Amino acid sequence: MLPMPTKYRMVAGSSEGATELNAFDGALLSAGAGNLNLLRVSSILPPGAVYDETLVIPPGNLVPVAYGSIVNSRPGATISAAVAVGIPEDGDYGVIMELSGEFDRFTAESRIRQMVVNAFKIRNKPLADVRICSAEHMVDKIGCAFAGVLLWY
Amino acid sequence: MLPMPTKYRMVAGSSEGATELNAFDGALLSAGAGNLNLLRVSSILPPGAVYDETLVIPPGNLVPVAYGSIVNSRPGATISAAVAVGIPEDGDYGVIMELSGEFDRFTAESRIRQMVVNAFKIRNKPLADVRICSAEHMVDKIGCAFAGVLLWY
Amino acid sequence: MLPMPTKYRMVAGSSEGATELNAFDGALLSAGAGNLNLLRVSSILPPGAVYDETLVIPPGNLVPVAYGSIVNSRPGATISAAVAVGIPEDGDYGVIMELSGEFDRFTAESRIRQMVVNAFKIRNKPLADVRICSAEHMVDKIGCAFAGVLLWY
Repeated sequence: MLPMPTKYRMVAGSSEGATELNAFDGALLSAGAGNLNLLRVSSILPPGAVYDETLVIPPGNLVPVAYGSIVNSRPGATISAAVAVGIPEDGDYGVIMELSGEFDRFTAESRIRQMVVNAFKIRNKPLADVRICSAEHMVDKIGCAFAGVLLWY
Repeated sequence: MLPMPTKYRMVAGSSEGATELNAFDGALLSAGAGNLNLLRVSSILPPGAVYDETLVIPPGNLVPVAYGSIVNSRPGATISAAVAVGIPEDGDYGVIMELSGEFDRFTAESRIRQMVVNAFKIRNKPLADVRICSAEHMVDKIGCAFAGVLLWY
Repeated sequence: MLPMPTKYRMVAGSSEGATELNAFDGALLSAGAGNLNLLRVSSILPPGAVYDETLVIPPGNLVPVAYGSIVNSRPGATISAAVAVGIPEDGDYGVIMELSGEFDRFTAESRIRQMVVNAFKIRNKPLADVRICSAEHMVDKIGCAFAGVLLWY
């Protein structure tokens, strides 16, 4: 089987770019998640995974990541991306939520918090804490906002 | 290299949710594929992979999965998701197909069966059997239907 | 952690199909990337990865891949997909870009080359070489163009 991640770090950033993919690439670099091979997952915090604020992953690695991202090319638009981790009381697995859209980061954070609450409610699981990380960007020409939970070892 | 899966299980489910992602999360739980880190793949049944109806994967694992999924917020809409596995006569690799849309599950199953037939035809490969798994949902507010083939070890 | 790829191969192809997924499946086969479980990544060339034109991966394997793909069902439309790898002067990681759309392959190649240039510029990294692979297709009924960088071991 594939090894289960044991650490995580939450990151967010934003950027303009000459193309949509360049804007996304710039947002990853801005978030500190550039130069990696991101493998998108839907999205559970593995049991026992430890938050590591100092986590640095060598370039080129295959990194499981839960993320929200938006690219927008309407000048003046406010875009946001957020991720949230719901930490359970029981020390077992947690739940990760992702969100992005044309709204400010406070809206994003408020909504994603509720999404985590919903996810714990449907599981009848007591929620101990919610950690949120978000980025907001005002579009000039082509802008991207990105927020992700990097899962690592 | 990444280890090649040796087992698989087909699952399907559906759910309402307060947001699109909560509906997706609920559909995964309903299908018995909740609490996993799904890594979406396009989508071949590895040679020799064995169907395991009783497969239970511990929470938080990275699980390769081929899936179809649809979220819809039009009250009264009928949505379906289906997966199909084409089993070859030669005992070599099989082909997995995914489908989702605004139709009933019988339509989904009929169409996806034909998709598997097409996939074997283009390969000039004799088809021994087709296994199908599907879910149908009538949308109340925000609904999701999900069907997937979990690949495991 | 997941093992970092050490080899890569660039492939491209196109196909018609009876459904969108069958067209995609056909394009993968045409590209020489069929019969694999593609794990889509965003998208860095690992440091030291070696180009292997003769790379053949056994069916059913989980293969990290950066790709661009487009399905189109407008008869007569010209569609293209391209991937590009930017090779750095410093021998460290490279950058992979993907592009697809309703344009010819020369347009695709010209644009994706610029995307690689942009990606190196934002990193202040000297660019030694750009390798491009692309496919163009004129749609009959349902067509797909695919281009990808297979990452392997």
